Amino acid sequence: MTISMYQASIPVLTKVLGNLAGILEKAEAHAVTKKIDPAVFIQARLYPDMYPLVRQIQIATDVAKGGAARLAGQTPPPYADTETSFTELQTRIAKTIAFLQTFTPGQIDGSEENTVTLPVGGREKTFAGLLYLLEFVLPNVYFHTTTAYAILRHGGVDLGKADFLGSH
Amino acid sequence: MTISMYQASIPVLTKVLGNLAGILEKAEAHAVTKKIDPAVFIQARLYPDMYPLVRQIQIATDVAKGGAARLAGQTPPPYADTETSFTELQTRIAKTIAFLQTFTPGQIDGSEENTVTLPVGGREKTFAGLLYLLEFVLPNVYFHTTTAYAILRHGGVDLGKADFLGSH
Repeated sequence: MTISMYQASIPVLTKVLGNLAGILEKAEAHAVTKKIDPAVFIQARLYPDMYPLVRQIQIATDVAKGGAARLAGQTPPPYADTETSFTELQTRIAKTIAFLQTFTPGQIDGSEENTVTLPVGGREKTFAGLLYLLEFVLPNVYFHTTTAYAILRHGGVDLGKADFLGSH
Repeated sequence: MTISMYQASIPVLTKVLGNLAGILEKAEAHAVTKKIDPAVFIQARLYPDMYPLVRQIQIATDVAKGGAARLAGQTPPPYADTETSFTELQTRIAKTIAFLQTFTPGQIDGSEENTVTLPVGGREKTFAGLLYLLEFVLPNVYFHTTTAYAILRHGGVDLGKADFLGSH
């Protein structure tokens, strides 16, 4: 018995991004209730040289769409990175989930030994498909989605780990 | 071609915890340089009802050791949760990595359909091994290690995402 690259990628990424959408819904509701300008949350960050919430979500979705596309041997579709509202961030997340769901197991399975090349920090990096998924895509997506959660939690939004992990 | 439960768990968890140890080394060095009482970082948190750094690391290591043990059909060894210094946190992380490395592929592979039962939030939850790994163990470990990173980054420690992801 074994597991497949598809099982370890598409359903996992879909779930994380779905949970992120729920977290942002709670943040927007909190902003409305407390009469906080949503832009305050969109631009909130934990330290001056860290990325704000909007960028955390842009990167998380970029890595997820890039992960699926590259494992399937495709070039990821570009996104414009112009979101300025919760609604636009939700649209980006929904678009990413819809993109993930276009992939079939047949397109992703067997990609563990594929060579994946992508720009990282200004230079080209090459990974085997398995390490690309396990040591780049998943940790990156969790890193940026957790940081988004932490920014909102630090800003007083009432969230718990169950919002991040989702139901089981 | 497929991937194995071992590949998706032990090396991944070992790497995350090794990177966490490096992050804590930088935090301790920062405290020494800036003459900050290390206890300030150990007890730092992002919001009054969030867990402090020490607890983030205790939970990350608990989930990692529990993940390996339960996938192999073992009862996880208990840890005392008494750490009050960077040195003690490093010992806990090193002990967890050493524990992870006692497992062989033969003990973990084939566990994707095993039934795993564990206490979550005060009640017993049951997972299939695959979902336990992909939707509980890995997201939990990344959630708490990223939060540890965020606490330190928010506290002014000079860290970057490369510290979290490690080298490739």
